[in-house]
Formats: sequence, structure tokens, C-alpha cells
Amino acid sequence: MKIVIDCFGGDKSPSANVQGAIKALKKYDDLTLILTGDEGQIKKELDRCGYTGDMIEIVHAPEIITGDDKPVDAIRLKKESSMVKAIKMLREDGEIKAVVSTGATGALIGIATVRIGRVRGVRRPAFCPLLPTMTGGIVGICDSGANIDAVTAETLVHNAILGSNYLKAAYGIENPRVALLNVGTEAHKGDEMRRKAYEYLKNLDNLNFVGNMESRDLLSGKYDLVVCDAFSGNVLVKSTEGTALFLLKKLKTDIYSKTVYKLGALLMKKMFAQEKDFFNYQNYGGSVLLGCEKVIVKGHGSSDAKAISVCIDQAYRMSNGGMNELAERQIAAFYDKIENK
Amino acid sequence: MKIVIDCFGGDKSPSANVQGAIKALKKYDDLTLILTGDEGQIKKELDRCGYTGDMIEIVHAPEIITGDDKPVDAIRLKKESSMVKAIKMLREDGEIKAVVSTGATGALIGIATVRIGRVRGVRRPAFCPLLPTMTGGIVGICDSGANIDAVTAETLVHNAILGSNYLKAAYGIENPRVALLNVGTEAHKGDEMRRKAYEYLKNLDNLNFVGNMESRDLLSGKYDLVVCDAFSGNVLVKSTEGTALFLLKKLKTDIYSKTVYKLGALLMKKMFAQEKDFFNYQNYGGSVLLGCEKVIVKGHGSSDAKAISVCIDQAYRMSNGGMNELAERQIAAFYDKIENK
Repeated sequence: MKIVIDCFGGDKSPSANVQGAIKALKKYDDLTLILTGDEGQIKKELDRCGYTGDMIEIVHAPEIITGDDKPVDAIRLKKESSMVKAIKMLREDGEIKAVVSTGATGALIGIATVRIGRVRGVRRPAFCPLLPTMTGGIVGICDSGANIDAVTAETLVHNAILGSNYLKAAYGIENPRVALLNVGTEAHKGDEMRRKAYEYLKNLDNLNFVGNMESRDLLSGKYDLVVCDAFSGNVLVKSTEGTALFLLKKLKTDIYSKTVYKLGALLMKKMFAQEKDFFNYQNYGGSVLLGCEKVIVKGHGSSDAKAISVCIDQAYRMSNGGMNELAERQIAAFYDKIENK
Repeated sequence: MKIVIDCFGGDKSPSANVQGAIKALKKYDDLTLILTGDEGQIKKELDRCGYTGDMIEIVHAPEIITGDDKPVDAIRLKKESSMVKAIKMLREDGEIKAVVSTGATGALIGIATVRIGRVRGVRRPAFCPLLPTMTGGIVGICDSGANIDAVTAETLVHNAILGSNYLKAAYGIENPRVALLNVGTEAHKGDEMRRKAYEYLKNLDNLNFVGNMESRDLLSGKYDLVVCDAFSGNVLVKSTEGTALFLLKKLKTDIYSKTVYKLGALLMKKMFAQEKDFFNYQNYGGSVLLGCEKVIVKGHGSSDAKAISVCIDQAYRMSNGGMNELAERQIAAFYDKIENK
């Protein structure tokens, strides 16, 4: 198994990316990692870590794509960047199964959409991050921001199929409980697109559709996958993350307002650290771009070595699961069914 | 000033509604309240509270609309309900300025949309709840669930104008900072509708448009009003509320897991009560239905007497501000501008 690690573009690049690669290699015997980026800097980091193995290759790529680069320009003007080269190799080399990147999200989606083929039946890829739930599990949100402009009831079905197979392949969730994000739980709720999607999902074979979900229940642990359009999915993920961080920050400010609170908090120091860790999204892996022929994992920009090794783990499991072939068959079956109706 | 209080349909009805009415009357000399609902039960509650004034009238309405009633059926089949009668009086009696209800949201929106005229230029009303911000203020979210099916860039402009005038009239915010909910802050972000709305809002007179907002910044205190379509607004409000409640619940569970945490929490008891109070939406008033010719305030189903008196406060201030006349002129000016362009 060969996976490419884009070693630049993250806040802690390239050191976190290189260290994360070394960390991941300890877990798998059959894994080769190809690191793209400035060769000198990557070599220096490998030396600093004392890596002497032969499971890492370096492909020199001196340019870096940043958040300021427009996605459309990035692919055209920065051909020598670590991200463009990583995706190019993924496209051209049959042995390479996945790319892990901590670079700019917009550019990565753009380059992948243009350069990597789609699972048959899927017109645009979808983004699927994970959040922790109250019952100690995870919940995937698909789409959370890739396909902003061309959402239909059919693309919501694609998101459900792609996300469900992803959770099976990467997390061993046998029969993921899939919900449709809506403004209420009753079947007739939402706009026309949502009502149509509800009917499609309810009648889909091989999908464990459990009905509509209100956004307040995202972290309840009752759902493994929430299906949504990219816009409201983006709102959902960011408001959940934002509110949790806001509340933790508020607690901290309030604790510092009185000595007796500071004393109380001292006794609860370990607990507060755990709460913070619980809401550290890096622990739950990267967002994956679903619907592409090959696997693309987007780690958070601020990923450290541990977070990046988790992303490589994800990419490894996704590449092994045959999830795209399964999705292709299920999407074809869905269209057969609605056309013959 | 005459305001109608729908005294049934809430979790604590009618006692909380009646007590809330009495509480509100202590504040205003020129306020008369008309209570709709079962006359016997309302009278009993007034007696129990020892109310002897003459600023309360009762209009007997024996039926109750519940969450199980379909909005379309409610208006037709429950003509003798406290909600339908309240809206009927609002429609027919020129002296009555507002209705406050804690009944079923869908039914209230439905009945108001059918029975109460719209501000000229507005086709459908919008819902605008309030949330507390990190800097001690409030933020309005408009629309959060009323106009699910007919959203355009123009209706987003209506939401901005209606919401902005509401915050001025009811909360004295002189020049509300208005943001557009989007997937990123840059001007080109979002779908076509959002990009068009951005251009409209940027060029609108008498509106303090400050640009796009990501959902994670809702509680930051940087914005007074967030403009959004009903679907994503609903997702935004419920995920913010849901995450806060979830985290507070998680803290409680974790505190009970160890004696030393329980001890620490004991010292912080007052602080935790304050956090809970901070996220008690009832303290910030009801959701208002904007764009109707007359004022409609929807209190939370679980509203207590205090929460209902806050809703009556809101209704009073909104009825006095001339906000609808202002919105009408601004919406007309917007259409003049885009038509003459």
C-alpha cells in the first residue's frame, strides 16, 4: 500500500507531517509513504527524528499552496507545489491509493475535483468530517462543504451511500444509522428537496435510514451519519465546534473571576483537560473527500504529528475496504429503481 | 395599548401565561391584556393570584391547539381554540397591536401567515429568535424556520431589513451590525443566492452590513443580526442550543464520576448555576414573527411566568416602534434601486 503525504501547507508543516508519517509506519508492515515537499527540509526533519528505514520516499516539490491562493489558480500556477504533485501522483500511479494533506481546504477540493475521477454516478465529491458523540462514539456529517452549488435530492442520496460505506470501511460500523438533517423529525418536514430525499432514503436498499434529525441532536449518539447539503452541513459542523469552544472559553473566564472558583477548578483540573480533549477534533481524524475514485483525507490545518498519523490510519483503512466499488453498485441500483418506478 | 395573550398550548399553561400577564401589567400603565382560553380556568388562576385590577379581559376559547395538529387543519377545525381566536382578534380589532403565544410553532406561523396581512413587499414572514453572546449582548437570527420553501436573494434582504428594524425598535440597538450566514467570510463564498444577496446587502442604504459570518462566530458578540435562509437558520439555532445543553449535561455527568470533582463543583455551584442561566433562552424573550402587519411573539413551549412577561415586554416595545412602516419604505427603496439599475 502506497500513500502520499503532502508535507506542506499545515500550521506545523513539515515537522508534524514528517513525524506523523514515521508514527504511522510503526503500525503497518505493508505501508510505503511518499512525502511531497521541499526535499531539503523533509530530509532534515527525517534526520532529526533519526528515521533510518526504507519505507519513506521523498518527491521534491518546492512550492506551497496557502489559503490565499484561489483554488482555480493553485492548480494552474503552482504545479510544483506539494499538494498539486501529491494529487498528480495519486492520479497517475495505480499503486498509490490515497493522499493525506493538511493544506488549504478549498484548493484541495478544487484540485481533487478536477484531477481525480469520480465514483460512477457521482458528479461532485462530498466532504465528511467526524465529531464525537455523547455516548463515546463518532458521527459523520456528509456533505459539510464541498458541493455548494449543485445540491439535489439525488446528491443527498449519494452522500448517504458514500458516507455509510465510509463508516463501514474505516470504522467497522456494521450498519450505520443514517439520518437526514431537517428542521423537524416528522417525515413531511423541510423543503421540497428534503421531502423528496426522505422518500428516496426510506426506500433505498442496503441503507439503515432512521429518519429526519434536528441539528440539536447531532451529538446525541443516536446517529452514525447525518446527510445534508453542503451549506447547512457546514453551518452544522462549525456551529457545533464553535459553541463548544465558546462555552469552554466562557467557563475559563468565569473561573478566573473568583478565588473560590479557581480553587474548585484546581480540584477539577484533570476533568477540564479531558473535556478540552473530548472536543479536540484532531483526535477523531481528518475530513475525508468522498465520491472520488481514490482516497483523499484532509487533516485540520493545525494538525500535530498524532493527528496526522490518525489521518494516515484513516486513509489506510479506507483504501482497503472496497468502499467505492460498493458505492458505485448502490448508486447504480438507486437510479435503476427510480427510473423503473 | 392592547395585547392578546394566548393562554393555552404551552407546557405550563394556563398558570404561567396568566401569571406572566399579571407580572407584565405592573410595568405599564397604558396596557390592557386580553387573555384567550378556557374562561373558568383563567378566572381560577386570576383568583389564585389575587388579581383584582381591571386591565385584563378574558375571551372564552375552549379548544387547544397542540403540536399534533397539522397547521392547515388547526385553522379550519379548531376555530374555538385560544390561538385561532387570538389571531382573529388581532386581525379584526384595530386597537389590538400584538399576540403573545406559547402554543405550537408550526400552527402559529401557519395561522398568522393566512390571517394576518404582510408588510408591503414581503411575501412570507420570517422567524427571529435571539441568543446570548460572549460579550453580554444578544444576537438575532432571521429567518430561523418560517419561510422554508421560497427563499431567494431578495427574501434574504427582507430578513435583513425586518431584523434590523426589530432590534432597533425592541432593543434600542442604534445601528445593528448585520452579517450574512455563509460557509466562509470572503465575499465570493457560498452558492449563487448567497453571492447575490451579498451584493444586495452591501449596496443597501440604511443597513449596517458587515459581511459574511461563519456559524462558529455566532456567539462572538461581533454581530447583532445574522441573516439566513430558514433551513440553515434553523440548523444554526438548534445546533448552538443543542451543543451548549449537551456540554453542560456532559460536565454534570463527569462531575458525578469522582468525589474530588464533586468537591470542586461544590465550590463552583454558583458559577455553574449562572452558566445554566446564561444558556436559558427564555431569559432573552420569545422568537418574533417578522414581516406581518402586526406583532406576533412566540414564547418557548416551556415558558414560565417570567419568560412570558419578557415576551409581553417585547411585544409592547415592538408595537410602539413604527418598525413595520420603516421596513416597508426600505423594502420599496430596495426594489426601486435594483429595478433602476
